[in-house]
Amino acid sequence: MGIHATGAPGNGPAVSRREFDALFESVRTWGRWAAADRGAWNRVTADHVRRATATVRSGTTVPMARPWDTRPGPDNARPALHFMSDLGDVEAAEPSVHKDFLGADYHGKAVTHLDALSHVAYGGQLYDGRAARETVGAAGARFGSVSALGPLVTRGVLIDLPAVLGVEWLEPGRAVHAWDLLAAEEALGVTVGDGDAVLLRSGALRRRRERGPWSPDEASAGWHVDALPLLAERAVALLGGDGDSDVRPSPVEGVHSPVHTLAVTAMGVPLLDNLDLEPLSAVCAEAGRYAFLLVVAPLNVPGGTGSPVNPVAVL
Amino acid sequence: MGIHATGAPGNGPAVSRREFDALFESVRTWGRWAAADRGAWNRVTADHVRRATATVRSGTTVPMARPWDTRPGPDNARPALHFMSDLGDVEAAEPSVHKDFLGADYHGKAVTHLDALSHVAYGGQLYDGRAARETVGAAGARFGSVSALGPLVTRGVLIDLPAVLGVEWLEPGRAVHAWDLLAAEEALGVTVGDGDAVLLRSGALRRRRERGPWSPDEASAGWHVDALPLLAERAVALLGGDGDSDVRPSPVEGVHSPVHTLAVTAMGVPLLDNLDLEPLSAVCAEAGRYAFLLVVAPLNVPGGTGSPVNPVAVL
Amino acid sequence: MGIHATGAPGNGPAVSRREFDALFESVRTWGRWAAADRGAWNRVTADHVRRATATVRSGTTVPMARPWDTRPGPDNARPALHFMSDLGDVEAAEPSVHKDFLGADYHGKAVTHLDALSHVAYGGQLYDGRAARETVGAAGARFGSVSALGPLVTRGVLIDLPAVLGVEWLEPGRAVHAWDLLAAEEALGVTVGDGDAVLLRSGALRRRRERGPWSPDEASAGWHVDALPLLAERAVALLGGDGDSDVRPSPVEGVHSPVHTLAVTAMGVPLLDNLDLEPLSAVCAEAGRYAFLLVVAPLNVPGGTGSPVNPVAVL
Amino acid sequence: MGIHATGAPGNGPAVSRREFDALFESVRTWGRWAAADRGAWNRVTADHVRRATATVRSGTTVPMARPWDTRPGPDNARPALHFMSDLGDVEAAEPSVHKDFLGADYHGKAVTHLDALSHVAYGGQLYDGRAARETVGAAGARFGSVSALGPLVTRGVLIDLPAVLGVEWLEPGRAVHAWDLLAAEEALGVTVGDGDAVLLRSGALRRRRERGPWSPDEASAGWHVDALPLLAERAVALLGGDGDSDVRPSPVEGVHSPVHTLAVTAMGVPLLDNLDLEPLSAVCAEAGRYAFLLVVAPLNVPGGTGSPVNPVAVL
Repeated sequence: MGIHATGAPGNGPAVSRREFDALFESVRTWGRWAAADRGAWNRVTADHVRRATATVRSGTTVPMARPWDTRPGPDNARPALHFMSDLGDVEAAEPSVHKDFLGADYHGKAVTHLDALSHVAYGGQLYDGRAARETVGAAGARFGSVSALGPLVTRGVLIDLPAVLGVEWLEPGRAVHAWDLLAAEEALGVTVGDGDAVLLRSGALRRRRERGPWSPDEASAGWHVDALPLLAERAVALLGGDGDSDVRPSPVEGVHSPVHTLAVTAMGVPLLDNLDLEPLSAVCAEAGRYAFLLVVAPLNVPGGTGSPVNPVAVL
Repeated sequence: MGIHATGAPGNGPAVSRREFDALFESVRTWGRWAAADRGAWNRVTADHVRRATATVRSGTTVPMARPWDTRPGPDNARPALHFMSDLGDVEAAEPSVHKDFLGADYHGKAVTHLDALSHVAYGGQLYDGRAARETVGAAGARFGSVSALGPLVTRGVLIDLPAVLGVEWLEPGRAVHAWDLLAAEEALGVTVGDGDAVLLRSGALRRRRERGPWSPDEASAGWHVDALPLLAERAVALLGGDGDSDVRPSPVEGVHSPVHTLAVTAMGVPLLDNLDLEPLSAVCAEAGRYAFLLVVAPLNVPGGTGSPVNPVAVL
Repeated sequence: MGIHATGAPGNGPAVSRREFDALFESVRTWGRWAAADRGAWNRVTADHVRRATATVRSGTTVPMARPWDTRPGPDNARPALHFMSDLGDVEAAEPSVHKDFLGADYHGKAVTHLDALSHVAYGGQLYDGRAARETVGAAGARFGSVSALGPLVTRGVLIDLPAVLGVEWLEPGRAVHAWDLLAAEEALGVTVGDGDAVLLRSGALRRRRERGPWSPDEASAGWHVDALPLLAERAVALLGGDGDSDVRPSPVEGVHSPVHTLAVTAMGVPLLDNLDLEPLSAVCAEAGRYAFLLVVAPLNVPGGTGSPVNPVAVL
Repeated sequence: MGIHATGAPGNGPAVSRREFDALFESVRTWGRWAAADRGAWNRVTADHVRRATATVRSGTTVPMARPWDTRPGPDNARPALHFMSDLGDVEAAEPSVHKDFLGADYHGKAVTHLDALSHVAYGGQLYDGRAARETVGAAGARFGSVSALGPLVTRGVLIDLPAVLGVEWLEPGRAVHAWDLLAAEEALGVTVGDGDAVLLRSGALRRRRERGPWSPDEASAGWHVDALPLLAERAVALLGGDGDSDVRPSPVEGVHSPVHTLAVTAMGVPLLDNLDLEPLSAVCAEAGRYAFLLVVAPLNVPGGTGSPVNPVAVL
């Protein structure tokens, strides 16, 4: 495997398992941080937070969570739950109160969520070399839980590739490569730096609105693994996207989610899946700026492998 | 009823239903905003966001969510759910993935959450005079849902009353009055202004850790309704606390949650319940500053009456 | 409308709303029983129980519940939940224990379940003329709950129409009429009598296994309303089937589930939906008998509108 | 350990781990049945079913499920869930329909339920010597699931010990011994035989109604392990009770649930926990008969370790 700008709009080039394993080793950061649970979020110091807040100009606030979706569909195999537990008729008035129950098996393709470091294991090992089977049980994860992560406040960068390429969206299955990132940086006037959160827009939600839902397991636009060395070099803290970061079908032999594996397991970089980046794309285009203050505040679930979230950009 | 500094540490003075209804009228903001669903959050303009981000000095980030608690207790009548749905043995490797289900009937005394405007009705009416029974059904709320609120980015102010009073915590049942707020502003060097989020610390979580849990329905420190006219005058956007804002038992005849009623239903001010303000108290004390950037990012639940959240302060 | 043996395999004849309402009146049993919550189950006396047990010959036991299905599909819009809450690693050994959580919004087309009398209202009225809106709230049903029903032990009769007609299954959308019931009685050597539970087999599960799932909302074999007067005359206690008893699309103008309405709301006859009748069909055919002891034991849910069940036939 | 009628009302005599392990070996039936998942239910042949139905005299039907309980308490650590998912306002009328969601982590002390053979492991082994860790995972149990059991129709025998002893109830912590069973058989005029389901009444629910709930983990009346050899000799198919069969505190050193272990893991005898036997006690007393037709119909949950049930006696 090498980085070669073929321009082919597919999910390739194909990557052998041996090449993938070498890539895994080359980007691995195990043993680097005392607070290993937080992985690459250790890169985000108080300085980064200050600099991120200093990017705010207009005060425009943009949320990124998709609506909580209780209906099954090709991209919603485990629909979320939403029930009213009080309609003002259960507890005594006055006042009367309305209450609701929320539930979700949130990993998957429908709920906007954060993957903590306990979410993904490769060869039986979690980030930092922890044995998955000894670490995660029915009571949850004893290492790499979302509670250990806590919230992230850092600079976010939107890699709005359809805007760069002048298309409405990337077709499902289109791999995003290192050279795409370099081209986007130049076109958008932004450079990804250490501690940044990189949000990749493929335009999937625009396509979904216009063409209807499809199965992202079968075809999604997302990073090809050949982009990960550059992202590792840039020392990013977080990757996110309007898909789940992985191009699908996977170009890597025998590895269904290779970007998850490299990011979460090798690099300790949490992922934000299933963002709605359409509003942010419009705001960034209008402002002419693609960097902003980003706040991600997962629920405080001890032992949780992630959390539903509503990430917020402030421009 | 009048504002008189009795200094009595109880939940009084008692307030008649007639006095309460007059108070309700006096602070009511119905009809004020086109985007009525967002209530007092309409006060928070892009200017407020910019000024809030400009308060950041050190870059210290402080989360406020209590741990997701699956065990019942005197302050947890509807325990949250947390189940592992994949332990690396359900979906095909590689990689293996760990997944979990989260569920909560989150209103109550255990989950850190935001109350949206559809949560509370008085005399059958929601904020802005909407008829509750026509507005909220088994499919959720058609007005005042948490999706209509979206995230809030504004200036937060911590009213750390135990710090002001030199005590470890306020005893459960202790009412907080307008003069307490005025005294706290002076002692803490901060003035609550329009669009601010006011977070009241009673020290409940410190007391809980040292003395064990109790039933907050029976006794909680919180605002007395006599403080609400001042908070209305200051044009706050959000009230929050380490209780649920209401002093309990209620001092108001026939109204079990009078502060909820005035804030949510009359003033359109959402509430943050069950915060853990202990870390924020320590950070503010050390920094000598009680105002900060606050970000609250509820889940995007169409029709939801609120959301579990993990509010974040940045100092 | 009249009963005319057209032999047409469709869902007709069409029925006007006026004809339907007259039918509703003609089969209505409101006010008949003191224990109105139990509706037609009042017909099942201790005598009926004794006679039902006396039908047992071989001692063969046949369950009728479909597997609990956690995957969405065209006939599973609200997948059931099944999570392991202990894998021997949460509570202390010895012994180690395995535990699981079950959840279901069980009405619909996937879970085998019983409909209690609070499930269906027509013109705002439940069985016995109770006002639905005053009777059922967020805390459940105050009349017609599944707890009021309790278990049913009675004689079951399998109307195995594909066996009678010499076909593998009834095509979805095929209405079953009074003359079909009469023909089946003759062919199968059984006569439906008072207090009986009538189970209609369409062969839907055989078709599903061979052809794959489809949306039963769009097309199901089931009773045409023209069969209900005969069933009312026979004084049945329970109707069940491998569909949900209603032929779909509905032949009745403006009424999506007319058999539900006549059975549950007018006649007080609970329904068993989504049975798997394939094993029972084989056992009855081999035994040459289509009547048997039937036991239906719903969960004891106060206020519940029904319950998942696993009905059992004993031949 | 030996069987000696001390008459002491406590949980003793104490049993060493070595004695317990010898007992485990002495009652073990591993390898006995081809359909090992069904364990002792293999004893119940069609003959047993016929003989059980032949016991029916009066046709009186008695359910045994406690109400589905959504409130936490000393005997309800994981409250069940019950939410209304449609109040006639979600789906289109006519008719309008009411629907509800049910959920439960049903093992424990509140929900009436059946324990399947995958529920309990001793020394890492399930019934028939299956390795628990290889057999039960996040997707459920691959051996000993409740689906493999299916329903049970057999003769039930009520061992109504308070009736025998002329007391209102057995005090929590009171062990029930082999000689208690023998005395009860004589007093009640019944002899436990092969394939029977033995239901032990301690009167716990009567005590609960009169004295309020307590923690059954701390003290429950139930079988002492010294009764298990007799129950094994009698070749029972099922044990049940108004507790969870185990006397608590456990008299066995280092084994918190020794009767669960002997019954489920050694003998392949499923358990029925948390029955309400008060109505059955009254009916049996009036009829002067303590044997009856028993039907237990668990939900058909593939991989499930048990199921909520509503067992039914027919006298």
